[in-house]
Amino acid sequence: MKLLEQLQWRYAAKRMNGSEVSGEIIRKILEAIRLAPSSMGLQPFKVIVIESSGVKEDIFRNACGQPQILECSHLLVFCGWNVVSESQISTYMESIAQAREIEVEQLDDFKQSILKFTSALSPGQTREWAARQVYLALGTAIDASALSHIDTTPMEGFNAAVLDEMLGLPNRDLHSVVLLALGYRDEHKDEFANTPKVRRKFEDVFEFI
Amino acid sequence: MKLLEQLQWRYAAKRMNGSEVSGEIIRKILEAIRLAPSSMGLQPFKVIVIESSGVKEDIFRNACGQPQILECSHLLVFCGWNVVSESQISTYMESIAQAREIEVEQLDDFKQSILKFTSALSPGQTREWAARQVYLALGTAIDASALSHIDTTPMEGFNAAVLDEMLGLPNRDLHSVVLLALGYRDEHKDEFANTPKVRRKFEDVFEFI
Repeated sequence: MKLLEQLQWRYAAKRMNGSEVSGEIIRKILEAIRLAPSSMGLQPFKVIVIESSGVKEDIFRNACGQPQILECSHLLVFCGWNVVSESQISTYMESIAQAREIEVEQLDDFKQSILKFTSALSPGQTREWAARQVYLALGTAIDASALSHIDTTPMEGFNAAVLDEMLGLPNRDLHSVVLLALGYRDEHKDEFANTPKVRRKFEDVFEFI
Repeated sequence: MKLLEQLQWRYAAKRMNGSEVSGEIIRKILEAIRLAPSSMGLQPFKVIVIESSGVKEDIFRNACGQPQILECSHLLVFCGWNVVSESQISTYMESIAQAREIEVEQLDDFKQSILKFTSALSPGQTREWAARQVYLALGTAIDASALSHIDTTPMEGFNAAVLDEMLGLPNRDLHSVVLLALGYRDEHKDEFANTPKVRRKFEDVFEFI
């Protein structure tokens, strides 16, 4: 399977060389994110794709001082929903009805089951539920990138409050969850570019019953 | 990109036909999970691979009454760590030192940074951090399966407390996070096997800056 080879090839690049990833490849990586499954199909996230070097510099200075922020081609900010509104669920029901060419009323039971689930979550639980869906899509983004020979650095260590303000997220009921830098590794500057991959042994990770 | 085609092909199968997925393919899917990246490389999870029909029946009766539990070939129970112990971090440092052929003391700064991060987390935060890493690996498992033409049903709706007891997880500082059924769709029994895929529009999910 090519994916296994490419997962062996990839690593979290510590330095990138500033080269630009083509729009065509970026579009395919984003399409993989969009096609990733999610809880009840709600896709409770937005991905902000940062191409502007000015915005990258702002983020580097104020929210995340890792060099990949400046050296990457595109920086993806994965944002989770803070709330699930009834109108978002209704929009989702309408898109299902349209795709299946049925009346939206036929989806009432499904709509009620989603409402029952989401309304039982506290604000903190809603954010965590959304964050988990973001991480699933993040896994797919990394796989799609590796299959296209694009380097990726997922980053959890950043000042989320500052970044959220900078991007105007709180007013839009969004919060930043994780960053993904896309670009090309700089093998000369990155001392980790050629170190062997370290993973727990197969028998430590898996157990058969 | 073949992944995009296969993500279009896949859906969360509601019914499976009971056919067995070959050991060779299962091994590749598990290897993809093992190669997935994780926070600081810690891979804070274990995956229990259930082949036993008796155990599947127990889970179906007591923790998750969805037919795919019985009809799948393999049921993966993704379990997150409840705690990150210093000994787990030390084991990780030793495996890095061995792979890179360096002295483990050279990793002291990295070890301290991990300890600083993990010791600042509450028990609930530790579980959520581990759950996010599980979801990233889940994304990769779904991608690897789709690339092998294997159907997958991720399942969040189950009685975790019952399942955890059944599998003896609390005594091992583990908790179940999400299930993934692997198998082959039953196109005749599953009314959703041929319904069109529904996803939010590209311009709703992505924003460019």
